[in-house]
Amino acid sequence: MITVEDARALLFDLVSPLESEAIRLADAAGRILAQDIVATRDQPPFAASSMDGYAVKSSEVEPHAMFKVIGEAAAGRRFEGLVGPGQAVRIFTGAPVPEGADFVVIQEDTEQRSDLLTITDTPGPKSNIRSAGVDFVSGTKITAPRCLRPEDVALIAAMNIPKVPVARQPVIALISTGDELVLPGETPGPDQIIASNTFGLKALLEKAGAKVRVLPIAQDTVASLETAFGLAEGADLVVTIGGASVGDYDLVSEVSQGLGMERSFYKIRMRPGKPLMAGRLGKTAMVGLPGNPVSAMVCGYLFLVPMVRRMLGIAQALTPLQRARLAEPIDKNGPREHYMRAILNDTGIRVCDDQDSSLLSVLAQANALLVREPNDPARLAGDEVQYLPI
Amino acid sequence: MITVEDARALLFDLVSPLESEAIRLADAAGRILAQDIVATRDQPPFAASSMDGYAVKSSEVEPHAMFKVIGEAAAGRRFEGLVGPGQAVRIFTGAPVPEGADFVVIQEDTEQRSDLLTITDTPGPKSNIRSAGVDFVSGTKITAPRCLRPEDVALIAAMNIPKVPVARQPVIALISTGDELVLPGETPGPDQIIASNTFGLKALLEKAGAKVRVLPIAQDTVASLETAFGLAEGADLVVTIGGASVGDYDLVSEVSQGLGMERSFYKIRMRPGKPLMAGRLGKTAMVGLPGNPVSAMVCGYLFLVPMVRRMLGIAQALTPLQRARLAEPIDKNGPREHYMRAILNDTGIRVCDDQDSSLLSVLAQANALLVREPNDPARLAGDEVQYLPI
Repeated sequence: MITVEDARALLFDLVSPLESEAIRLADAAGRILAQDIVATRDQPPFAASSMDGYAVKSSEVEPHAMFKVIGEAAAGRRFEGLVGPGQAVRIFTGAPVPEGADFVVIQEDTEQRSDLLTITDTPGPKSNIRSAGVDFVSGTKITAPRCLRPEDVALIAAMNIPKVPVARQPVIALISTGDELVLPGETPGPDQIIASNTFGLKALLEKAGAKVRVLPIAQDTVASLETAFGLAEGADLVVTIGGASVGDYDLVSEVSQGLGMERSFYKIRMRPGKPLMAGRLGKTAMVGLPGNPVSAMVCGYLFLVPMVRRMLGIAQALTPLQRARLAEPIDKNGPREHYMRAILNDTGIRVCDDQDSSLLSVLAQANALLVREPNDPARLAGDEVQYLPI
Repeated sequence: MITVEDARALLFDLVSPLESEAIRLADAAGRILAQDIVATRDQPPFAASSMDGYAVKSSEVEPHAMFKVIGEAAAGRRFEGLVGPGQAVRIFTGAPVPEGADFVVIQEDTEQRSDLLTITDTPGPKSNIRSAGVDFVSGTKITAPRCLRPEDVALIAAMNIPKVPVARQPVIALISTGDELVLPGETPGPDQIIASNTFGLKALLEKAGAKVRVLPIAQDTVASLETAFGLAEGADLVVTIGGASVGDYDLVSEVSQGLGMERSFYKIRMRPGKPLMAGRLGKTAMVGLPGNPVSAMVCGYLFLVPMVRRMLGIAQALTPLQRARLAEPIDKNGPREHYMRAILNDTGIRVCDDQDSSLLSVLAQANALLVREPNDPARLAGDEVQYLPI
């Protein structure tokens, strides 16, 4: 049995950052930028008015000054002439400031009659002009890697970049195993239950940025498992669920090794999720998750999500732990690292009463995994502890 | 001019929670559950072994006790007979516990030779049996509304519910307006810039749960705007961007009122985003955003995202403000509520140097909007302030 930390190091060895692909900007939000983006234009590309008003020479601006309005500049349609002494150009927000002008008097401070403009109120010192390139200039970089937020997408649009280089999404094939499983919507026999892990893990891994292929449930036979592994071809990562403990019916290890899997490790000193297995099948990484629903999901958070993040090229593959104070005391921990289902709210963090690894109802109530070191002593209410938000 | 709070109340009046639709469980993650889900089965549906071992009578469990192994129970295939005195059934994790047995001795504590089983180590007091219904029973509820997390999806799968009632996603039509705008990938004229708001807002609103229809850019003519409004038909919310201030070329108000818009309000006492407009066009809500990129995005966070959340039926439509300490002092605020672009890190929160509402590069660096009340006095480093995470 190895530690969670050692297991992660070995799992990271099984995967590498994937190649990039160019996608439409409209689809880029939430994807991971794979190469720096460099602006090839200035924004704004010209000095632009930030207000509706009149473009004049700043040296002529004072209360009661009068100007002749000689034209108009709108966003998208500049005034082509020159603003001379005593002249003004009607200007709208976003319009290029005409040559000869270096000040925009806002219209609230003016009165126009026919082509005669009078400044009626003292304009402040602000020129109401945005210089060319004040937002960004040719050469301004957006550095990779980064998860593209809506603001980044807007900025990339402003740079006139219609296609964006992002990390390809890793493809993960999910194989649930076990004669007892049927899919939601089927009628389970009296000894059967519903394959829930597949759906929970699919949601978790897609949220982390992967593309998930749900394969048919494998029965507890060599032939059925081999068929499922065959269907996983082309995936970056194959994840089996169940069939990873010591029972005679736990064939995943046998079949995957028969197919040439080089095992990386088996069993982790943790709760829940001890019987985790990993290795390499040709170019494909393979992880065998335990079948208990909570174990499978916790291992998803602790191991699969970081693997996805590493394949996406995210610098910080591990989600940093947070700190909170215990709302209620907890007993000492046993010899294995323990990820306890817990509920965090304004009063602190509290572990759920029943930590059995079969209880999805408890996991669905939890919003945190409280992390206990091996042999961590009993803790009092108010003690600070670490947790992983879920 | 009205306050942000009053504007939100009026905006919420323009929209209502949408009807629900039944979707495949595999697509349900991230969607908002619209009706309670009620389990119609127990999980596990039978008492199940939580370990690999031997099912026996607990009254017979003691070191060196011997049993005759009479059969086998695997997950998905129960042992149909009865476990009598002195008898044991080989059992695997997840298998139904056979009748007559009420204890599972884990295999590590036993030795089997032929059909003879001996307990070799003292079994603990744990029965290693999960009772029927320990996770959930028929009648257990998952209450709506809630945003379905991966854990919820797993639980719903376990309840054998293949289709899930979720709130229909609101459809939002985005109309960018202005002769100066071209789409990313086009070649802008010398007076033109790229329509960036459309892409930033699309990303923001999709992240909040909406479906976004990007309509063609409307020129600054009545005809072009009317065409765009016509293309918005069927949307739950029409959002125009730009053309909302006082200039002669700002036609959105004129055209929308010509089409029968009942105006709800125009102008908010806030920075950035003062010239916000809203109303109702028949059954469709309409919001007119200012055209400055930062103003448009900030209004998206403050107003559009809460409207989306309300249409999705989310109880808490407003994202609660967070608190942080200032890393650097800030000047007093003016008479309008101010949402300052700010950067939050381990040292506290710091407002960005240039708060001009045209600067997407600043917005893309920010991860928070620091909220200032009207006339808020100057604040010192270390003072606690409120912010909205972005």
